[in-house]
Amino acid sequence: MRNIKLTIEYDGTHFNGWQIQTKKTRTVQGEIEKALKRIFKKNVRVTGSGRTDSGVHALGQVAHFKTDSRMTPAEILKALNAHLPEDVVVLESGDVPAAFHAQYHARKKTYRYVILNRETRPVVERRFCLHVPVPLNLRAMRRAAQSLVGKHDFRSFMASDPARRDLPQPKDTVRTVTRIDIRKRKDTILVDMEANGFLYKMVRNIVGTLLTVGTGKTPAATMPDLLGCRNRALAGKTAAARGLFLLRVDYEAVHKPGGLKIIC
Amino acid sequence: MRNIKLTIEYDGTHFNGWQIQTKKTRTVQGEIEKALKRIFKKNVRVTGSGRTDSGVHALGQVAHFKTDSRMTPAEILKALNAHLPEDVVVLESGDVPAAFHAQYHARKKTYRYVILNRETRPVVERRFCLHVPVPLNLRAMRRAAQSLVGKHDFRSFMASDPARRDLPQPKDTVRTVTRIDIRKRKDTILVDMEANGFLYKMVRNIVGTLLTVGTGKTPAATMPDLLGCRNRALAGKTAAARGLFLLRVDYEAVHKPGGLKIIC
Repeated sequence: MRNIKLTIEYDGTHFNGWQIQTKKTRTVQGEIEKALKRIFKKNVRVTGSGRTDSGVHALGQVAHFKTDSRMTPAEILKALNAHLPEDVVVLESGDVPAAFHAQYHARKKTYRYVILNRETRPVVERRFCLHVPVPLNLRAMRRAAQSLVGKHDFRSFMASDPARRDLPQPKDTVRTVTRIDIRKRKDTILVDMEANGFLYKMVRNIVGTLLTVGTGKTPAATMPDLLGCRNRALAGKTAAARGLFLLRVDYEAVHKPGGLKIIC
Repeated sequence: MRNIKLTIEYDGTHFNGWQIQTKKTRTVQGEIEKALKRIFKKNVRVTGSGRTDSGVHALGQVAHFKTDSRMTPAEILKALNAHLPEDVVVLESGDVPAAFHAQYHARKKTYRYVILNRETRPVVERRFCLHVPVPLNLRAMRRAAQSLVGKHDFRSFMASDPARRDLPQPKDTVRTVTRIDIRKRKDTILVDMEANGFLYKMVRNIVGTLLTVGTGKTPAATMPDLLGCRNRALAGKTAAARGLFLLRVDYEAVHKPGGLKIIC
């Protein structure tokens, strides 16, 4: 069996997230599996690097699937894009070693959160940003963000949604955040976050908390305590899904049986 | 009577352009006049800097209207945005001299055309760009663009749509283009164009022609001839409306009766 790696862009607005739930809800994974079934005339399971929530977008989600087809990666890409709806597209398709796993081998994920910081509501960007009409103290937000960089227990920023007890509750809530960049271009603030992994709703909870720092409600200096108390109830609100993009997923080297090292 | 200047952003996707046509078609001007009628309880005529075509977007369209209301500009802005639909918003509102006219006093307009230049179709940006899946020679496009900068008769780039004989046919087709910038950021090509005025569909016809240069179909060196022949049939196809944004409109100084010069 071949193992095919896909890089995927989607507009999350009309999706109930990445992962297949029931037959009725529209998910990105579901749409890709439907397209693969049309192409290969059989059921194919697609494994993503991780779920993204309802409304979250992706410019570089990664997934893999197994096939015995003889189609070239370019033919698979073309066939998939011909069958996929207008809000999802496969950007890249390629053969990878059989051992490659989109979720288990993910070494680093990069997310971007987009904030439109102006008085009037967004129009052109309305599906792709959070609107914050009040001034934000970016220096304070950057200072707060810096105390999150490093290896920490991020339990304070993990979703505590009692309605989602169905989700796997990780025992290990320690993650390593390698970068949080906060940039402003005209009215738009971009928060880029890079880590070896993220807990459920962690990016949106961090952004929600940084916004309470930006508006002056929370002092930047309290961030280490907030992190230390490991209590979700103390952090800020979860920022809206529509501002969040999964930008890219980076992988560790995969060793082929012959000893050849391949970076996927 | 007061004269109020508005700066307006809209997503042109679901509009039949700026200008009111029949009662049934949805236009930006129509939506603003409807909102003003709700606020002021009477008919108010709004005059834009010029029409934009069906599907064309704006980040800085300008318009003016007369009113005897005592509402402050900030109150007018807030009331308008509360009544306007999600795909149009007023960014700025302010009192201007009675003589100010959004169309007649426009001194310079800046348009941006957005091209997504990659193999796979656009998803997140699909409403706001033209998709060009083949490589483009940007150097040739820039060379071609430079021969259009300056004061020329742009008849070759004016729409010759026989179905739109209802549109005013300008006698004077001479315009001064002060800048054409072509930049690439990752997969996105931005064509920014600045002139003292544009003929009907001129930006989209110029972009369509530059694309034939970019793909090698037309040599860049033929542009002066193309301009000189003043024949629409020789230029390239009109580029799709969804890639076009009216970025801003700049105004000449307006002289108040008292001799005070005001830049609107």
